[in-house]
Amino acid sequence: MAQIRALIFDVFGTLVDWRRGVARDAQAALAPLGLDGDWEGFADDWRAQYQPAMAEVRTGRIPYRKLDLLHRRNLDLVLRARGWDGAVDETTRAHLNLAWHRLDAWPDVGPGLAALRQRFLLAPCSNGHIALMVALARHNGWHWDAVLGAELAQDYKPQPVVYQAAVAALGCAPEEVLMVAAHTDDLQAAAAAGLRTAHVARPFEKGPGGGETGPTAPVDWAAADLVELARTLGG
Amino acid sequence: MAQIRALIFDVFGTLVDWRRGVARDAQAALAPLGLDGDWEGFADDWRAQYQPAMAEVRTGRIPYRKLDLLHRRNLDLVLRARGWDGAVDETTRAHLNLAWHRLDAWPDVGPGLAALRQRFLLAPCSNGHIALMVALARHNGWHWDAVLGAELAQDYKPQPVVYQAAVAALGCAPEEVLMVAAHTDDLQAAAAAGLRTAHVARPFEKGPGGGETGPTAPVDWAAADLVELARTLGG
Repeated sequence: MAQIRALIFDVFGTLVDWRRGVARDAQAALAPLGLDGDWEGFADDWRAQYQPAMAEVRTGRIPYRKLDLLHRRNLDLVLRARGWDGAVDETTRAHLNLAWHRLDAWPDVGPGLAALRQRFLLAPCSNGHIALMVALARHNGWHWDAVLGAELAQDYKPQPVVYQAAVAALGCAPEEVLMVAAHTDDLQAAAAAGLRTAHVARPFEKGPGGGETGPTAPVDWAAADLVELARTLGG
Repeated sequence: MAQIRALIFDVFGTLVDWRRGVARDAQAALAPLGLDGDWEGFADDWRAQYQPAMAEVRTGRIPYRKLDLLHRRNLDLVLRARGWDGAVDETTRAHLNLAWHRLDAWPDVGPGLAALRQRFLLAPCSNGHIALMVALARHNGWHWDAVLGAELAQDYKPQPVVYQAAVAALGCAPEEVLMVAAHTDDLQAAAAAGLRTAHVARPFEKGPGGGETGPTAPVDWAAADLVELARTLGG
């Protein structure tokens, strides 16, 4: 079996708690305007537009554009659906759209990445673009070797080219790269591209009971969190 | 004047001493085979093929390929020119070609980058590809926010697209990005793309008296080294 040289990571849900982070920023931005809501529901509604927006790029209906632009279009949709279109000005929307740049990591991520970095090259392989990954790394104190993912490939996961472009940029063979994610479908697509796979449980990703507690299809490794994964891999 | 948000760096010559590093590795690989030479001259000859090889990509005669592949073609040319073709086997060539992954930084680079990182986003904008930049960062203990440059742009400096792709990936306006290099021509190309420019002196890049002691055309800042640049910028 080939030696693993690099680990690449899904980010939203796997490394950062998007639901509580977006809910917090939505409340901070919108509650002062007199708008009232279930802010985690607001985050869920915003996130629900994520896959449909990327599907337009994946199918070639629109050219690749950075996730900030898809997030912004989706935010406008969510505000309109709530009847809040007239209440939220451009400045507030632009600021709130960057909530995705300010998400906090799950507590195991900092120590887990630091341990894994002793032994492996590390890079995000997210649908977020480079500037967004840079912002999240600064916000959470992560040290990536490179920032890979959708922007490098000019397409969105689970398109094979996103995993293939990451592998090629690292100068590795596919089987030397381990994809880490809390989403089985992401790992299945990585495996189909020849990568190895590790699942981490994120039972709270979509609120209590709303995340994967384990893989729903075979993977090479499954761990409760990144610290356990580092121990398992000897990182 | 716009606030500077990010610094992007030339690498070969500006951050690392390619001449002594390549000479050291060439001696280590080739002297045991009974080959004898002026090893810094060997490094110079190898480096002399660098611009002509990239020119083939820039002019569209060949598609973009990673610098490792150009370096390898150039190494074969240099060995042949010395009549050493039969003496150096494939394994030795493949190992020696990675001398460019093992170059040591000038002594100010570590502390200079650490100081600048307190205030600015930092990324290489080199003609070296991502895997090569990752290797040099690991070898020298640097912490980049992202790895930008030729591979992202699929072309070689001084083509404008290389600077433009770096600026776009950072989500910055051109005037918010400062290009740092020891080569005036690199800075002139960056300035033409709208970036700001800082020259650092590398008087020993090509041996004693063989590097730029200062810019030969106007730049926004000029410094003796990165520590001085960090002080000047308040980093």
